[in-house]
Amino acid sequence: MSIFTYQEKDIYYEIDGTLDINSDVIVILNGIMMSTKSWDAFVENFSKNHVLLRYDMFDQGQSSKIEESYTQTIQVELLKNLLEHLGIAQANIVGISYGASIALQFAAKYPTMIKRMVVANVVAKTSPWLKDIGDGWNEVAKTGNGLAYYHITIPYIYSPQFYTLHNDWMEKRKELLVPLFSTRTFLDRMIRLTKSAETHDVIKDLPNIKTPTLIISSEEDYLTPPFEQKYLQEHLQNAELVSIPNCGHASMYEVPKTFTALVLGFFGQTKLDYQI
Amino acid sequence: MSIFTYQEKDIYYEIDGTLDINSDVIVILNGIMMSTKSWDAFVENFSKNHVLLRYDMFDQGQSSKIEESYTQTIQVELLKNLLEHLGIAQANIVGISYGASIALQFAAKYPTMIKRMVVANVVAKTSPWLKDIGDGWNEVAKTGNGLAYYHITIPYIYSPQFYTLHNDWMEKRKELLVPLFSTRTFLDRMIRLTKSAETHDVIKDLPNIKTPTLIISSEEDYLTPPFEQKYLQEHLQNAELVSIPNCGHASMYEVPKTFTALVLGFFGQTKLDYQI
Amino acid sequence: MSIFTYQEKDIYYEIDGTLDINSDVIVILNGIMMSTKSWDAFVENFSKNHVLLRYDMFDQGQSSKIEESYTQTIQVELLKNLLEHLGIAQANIVGISYGASIALQFAAKYPTMIKRMVVANVVAKTSPWLKDIGDGWNEVAKTGNGLAYYHITIPYIYSPQFYTLHNDWMEKRKELLVPLFSTRTFLDRMIRLTKSAETHDVIKDLPNIKTPTLIISSEEDYLTPPFEQKYLQEHLQNAELVSIPNCGHASMYEVPKTFTALVLGFFGQTKLDYQI
Amino acid sequence: MSIFTYQEKDIYYEIDGTLDINSDVIVILNGIMMSTKSWDAFVENFSKNHVLLRYDMFDQGQSSKIEESYTQTIQVELLKNLLEHLGIAQANIVGISYGASIALQFAAKYPTMIKRMVVANVVAKTSPWLKDIGDGWNEVAKTGNGLAYYHITIPYIYSPQFYTLHNDWMEKRKELLVPLFSTRTFLDRMIRLTKSAETHDVIKDLPNIKTPTLIISSEEDYLTPPFEQKYLQEHLQNAELVSIPNCGHASMYEVPKTFTALVLGFFGQTKLDYQI
Repeated sequence: MSIFTYQEKDIYYEIDGTLDINSDVIVILNGIMMSTKSWDAFVENFSKNHVLLRYDMFDQGQSSKIEESYTQTIQVELLKNLLEHLGIAQANIVGISYGASIALQFAAKYPTMIKRMVVANVVAKTSPWLKDIGDGWNEVAKTGNGLAYYHITIPYIYSPQFYTLHNDWMEKRKELLVPLFSTRTFLDRMIRLTKSAETHDVIKDLPNIKTPTLIISSEEDYLTPPFEQKYLQEHLQNAELVSIPNCGHASMYEVPKTFTALVLGFFGQTKLDYQI
Repeated sequence: MSIFTYQEKDIYYEIDGTLDINSDVIVILNGIMMSTKSWDAFVENFSKNHVLLRYDMFDQGQSSKIEESYTQTIQVELLKNLLEHLGIAQANIVGISYGASIALQFAAKYPTMIKRMVVANVVAKTSPWLKDIGDGWNEVAKTGNGLAYYHITIPYIYSPQFYTLHNDWMEKRKELLVPLFSTRTFLDRMIRLTKSAETHDVIKDLPNIKTPTLIISSEEDYLTPPFEQKYLQEHLQNAELVSIPNCGHASMYEVPKTFTALVLGFFGQTKLDYQI
Repeated sequence: MSIFTYQEKDIYYEIDGTLDINSDVIVILNGIMMSTKSWDAFVENFSKNHVLLRYDMFDQGQSSKIEESYTQTIQVELLKNLLEHLGIAQANIVGISYGASIALQFAAKYPTMIKRMVVANVVAKTSPWLKDIGDGWNEVAKTGNGLAYYHITIPYIYSPQFYTLHNDWMEKRKELLVPLFSTRTFLDRMIRLTKSAETHDVIKDLPNIKTPTLIISSEEDYLTPPFEQKYLQEHLQNAELVSIPNCGHASMYEVPKTFTALVLGFFGQTKLDYQI
Repeated sequence: MSIFTYQEKDIYYEIDGTLDINSDVIVILNGIMMSTKSWDAFVENFSKNHVLLRYDMFDQGQSSKIEESYTQTIQVELLKNLLEHLGIAQANIVGISYGASIALQFAAKYPTMIKRMVVANVVAKTSPWLKDIGDGWNEVAKTGNGLAYYHITIPYIYSPQFYTLHNDWMEKRKELLVPLFSTRTFLDRMIRLTKSAETHDVIKDLPNIKTPTLIISSEEDYLTPPFEQKYLQEHLQNAELVSIPNCGHASMYEVPKTFTALVLGFFGQTKLDYQI
């Protein structure tokens, strides 16, 4: 466990593997409710051939909160400064949802610092529809009712198929999450994080992003639906797209083997230029 | 405007056209938040070659509320008694969402009273997933916060594409609906209606339903997703299925021309037996 | 049975219902291998509230052949002249595949003569891919091998699901069609019809077509796949789109009830302007 | 270049990397028209962390032909004997189309010899529909017309989107392939290979196959459409499924980066058991 102090705030991060100048680094950018811990089950595979960097963004997990409201730009700057602090000149980046929107903004702003990226369950721009959904989350968060917050967020994060098939697991998650969702601190973090994503918009940047990109869609993703990733694929210069049937927004949890395969296999290719 | 008194409650209904023994009747079964009024724009077309019967179920629109909790069975019985009261021996039934689940239950219980049916945006059984979504709606309804209730329900009822394209219309709906959603009476009705749908389950009935059926799916339906209607089509004896691209749960509002075409065209065929 | 003599050729047509100045007419435009007879099972429903006009285009069914090669323009002109000959100032047009491409070209060229249209399983432009498929058909047609022609065309016209489920019916069709497909006359007609579709291209016309349009896609259409109709819907001014799951290119045969519902219901609406 | 003599026939194979008892081996099973050479562009990546074994099955590439007709069982036995000959006790197997059906049969028959598999663009059973398509191929193959054979096979192997976008590349392929498709030897091989796949059927085996499996679907696959792979995924014990939008049957050629990512990433995971 390590702390990077940035703008007088503590940023929690973990490194698996030995970081040096020749390391082929994978950085994970969490989804909005996630943290470094969410990826524990993935570490063994992700760090087999790569050095793995996980960290909590502002208002996530064990990193400091930011009291005033902000946009995702501060998360982009945090990533840049964290990489520089660790001496990582260029990294492979995998992000899901909130984390993937940071990845897209980072690729637009600091293209030389990103080697390849895998972005899952993400949009090019927060639509009025998605903004209203976020507003609903935040209005409920303000009430402090953790059970209500659970019920208006979590079902939309998993596919109905997974939710029904793994109902026992979901019930255990409910027991685990409702107490957390009932704490003022967590809800205030969620309110600020949700708000920060409202202005996400890389529409104009897409045609300039040359980073080799693999995009992951889930066919039952009801927050960032597949048509959004088709848009990304059509407007990025160098992107391929895969889609996961019967899978919801939290693709990493529903199909961990496939998610890992895509990440390891995309970052692990020596070259991406096939002369067929 | 007419009132049918049933179990000492007032049931509001409207008939367009002249009802007699030879009438080819279409009955509309509302979605959960809808009422007789929701269909005003459809009346001219629906009543052109048919007699049209619209009504508000218990706890809908101008019909009486029911204080204690109940299951959808009382809505099924209401429909049966209303038809008998009006001397309608057999009717074509079109239902959407909540109304379509009543249609399925009615077809299972009173098969001779239903000629054909069009069921849109509906499931065979309320899954644990859908139940939890309903619970979330109800927990927010209890708080009385109309804006929160709007934001946690309406975005999931329209497709993101429609919501974004018709943002002005959605904003006007918000102005219209938030005051309604802020009244205790409406929210208590919604709580009971939502609760009544929890036990909906026609899985075992499907193979016995012989009613000629047309099923409507919407590709961006995030409450009753397309795989649910595929299940229905595979398990009903006599059903065809259509799907609407870029359309959400409220298919009647998003594609009124197509919705009407399917209803009129399916009920209007003299015979359904094609010798190709 | 009636004959319209046009450019010294015989054009076969049939009218169901009594044609007069107030008739609300439906005209059917056949797919490439079809003829007036293909629609016999649909006549009762299609002529219930409308006057129905069916006809065979040049090189189809009982109409004359054209020896030299031609483009679809002659079919568009034929339709215009046939309508004028019959005194039909404006008609509803339903076309499938080849017939639907004629409908689109007709709507672009003679907009006042078309009231509404339903176009099924059609493209805006014959792509290099579709052209090569047509070339394959024609190369086999030249050999005169009717069984080969059957096997390289018919399986792509039905969905695998339908083909497998109705294998007996398909086998009967094979017995019926292979002798026909083995005649030089039929194959030469097919060669010319196929060739005439190569230059189909209404891409530039689409934004100017204001005809109220309903587009039918089939999810297992392997000749004019769903993305082609999405393109049409996005570029036409006034079009809605429905998609049929588990259905192939010959949607009228696979889902006759749904196909008829869409046609009758779309043409039967008094007005198409819904004030929701 | 190496030759394995099996049943007095020559089997051509290539190994990249140094094979020993600890090697983690990937074996490639070709699609029907493919050969060892088809994978040249993939060798660098596939052999980075694995020993790569490619070979031509009977009637493929540089391996011997078999004059009499046969079923796919001989290809399954060939694979088993080749692995034993090379001292490979267990291998990761990746197969596409014809090769993937061999992989499924092999997993059913010799489960201990297969560690994991990636199967792309494959069916559980050759349906009457697919059989008729194969019959069409073979009837044209008998005529010896290479151009016709090209046009009735190749367009269905690529997606219309790829075919149109890479029209120049397709034209070059046509120049390359038509002469090959015009040789009696090649066509006779194709006839036998196609015929051998007619009896492919692992429906009853699927529930017993425990091999960890990743299945690849292409959304525009018109020979082995996505519903076929959904069937596989639902009936295998341990399989995940990904789908590639805008991609046709030859997924390895259309999206080589994604195809490689899935293969390398699935075989490269140390363990596949995620405790989420």
